[in-house]
Amino acid sequence: MRIPSHIGIIPDGNRRWAVSKGMTKEKGYTEGLNPGLVLFKLCQGIGVKEITYYGFTTDNTKRPSEQRKAFTHACIDAVNMLSKEDASLLVVGNTNSSMFPKELLPYTNRKTFGNGSMKVNFLVNYGWEWDLNNLKLADKSKRNIHNNIKSNDVSRVDLIIRWGGRRRLSGFLPVQSIYADFYVIDDYWPDFKTDHFFQALKWYNEQDITLGG
Amino acid sequence: MRIPSHIGIIPDGNRRWAVSKGMTKEKGYTEGLNPGLVLFKLCQGIGVKEITYYGFTTDNTKRPSEQRKAFTHACIDAVNMLSKEDASLLVVGNTNSSMFPKELLPYTNRKTFGNGSMKVNFLVNYGWEWDLNNLKLADKSKRNIHNNIKSNDVSRVDLIIRWGGRRRLSGFLPVQSIYADFYVIDDYWPDFKTDHFFQALKWYNEQDITLGG
Repeated sequence: MRIPSHIGIIPDGNRRWAVSKGMTKEKGYTEGLNPGLVLFKLCQGIGVKEITYYGFTTDNTKRPSEQRKAFTHACIDAVNMLSKEDASLLVVGNTNSSMFPKELLPYTNRKTFGNGSMKVNFLVNYGWEWDLNNLKLADKSKRNIHNNIKSNDVSRVDLIIRWGGRRRLSGFLPVQSIYADFYVIDDYWPDFKTDHFFQALKWYNEQDITLGG
Repeated sequence: MRIPSHIGIIPDGNRRWAVSKGMTKEKGYTEGLNPGLVLFKLCQGIGVKEITYYGFTTDNTKRPSEQRKAFTHACIDAVNMLSKEDASLLVVGNTNSSMFPKELLPYTNRKTFGNGSMKVNFLVNYGWEWDLNNLKLADKSKRNIHNNIKSNDVSRVDLIIRWGGRRRLSGFLPVQSIYADFYVIDDYWPDFKTDHFFQALKWYNEQDITLGG
């Protein structure tokens, strides 16, 4: 079976999950922590080299403050949790903003935990415009794009898996996602099942890889 | 019914269609012309304001020369065909390359044909790197991305419809596609049916629009 080197995870549907359970929207985020850890271990088990979690974006911070606080805390908890695993961990996002949690500043340079076997990227207060604006500072004579964006330490993504049924990227790493295969799971992220992951891998295994050629 | 303002069209599967009919791959492209015109008229009929066709990319030009010639000619024919309709027509792509057909140079400034009611963009020798590299020439003090890319006259895309079953963007307008809803049709582009379009619209009508918020 062909295993993607780099998997992007869009863990959507936390708020809709909470509402479906009769809870207020912000209660959905903590339910996403355990699925994130299970998914990490599944990726580790099959030899995925890199995984990127879509934590929250600069767009998301416009939501009501109870929600903003809840998803920010869930991201802090998730990164701390992953730092107890074998991971080469990096948090990527705009730190020049009060929306960036100071608890995660130590992770904005890649750090190895345990044997650091897998690259794990966590997007926190990430913005696609923030990412691409770095190109305005680049050397005009060089043609490469990827080396010159803010998220240059995040590799090209092979497979994006999005939970919660929406079929869109919502600003997720536009440059690294150019050639990515995109698999959507209708269930909400807190309803994560290991079978979702294997469905996505099975589908990915049937795709051809052309990189636009 | 909520009608998308701007629809992106990825007309994929021409080569697979040809092979499935026992023909050589390059024979598939001319079969895509009529579907393109039918789709134009459907969009016009329901009041879509803008449509963008994915003609060919700089990545595609690495294919065998018979294929390259065939898709280039199909694009020339398609643009000439659309210039007989009511359209405000623009061809977008890298003209500083021998791969750009000189027949289409007159269309690289937007031109109105008939009453020009609908904006029609046609990507020809388009490259996402070519598009984004323009940011390196931009004023660093300005934060806007869209105004500073080569394809700045192409608006944000609401709905992308891709024929041929692949679930990926393959370099299609990365900036304008950031928030786009993405609908995939398994049939090959030459097997276009009007019902495909109405399926996509029906699905789009059920999506919420958050622009990442």
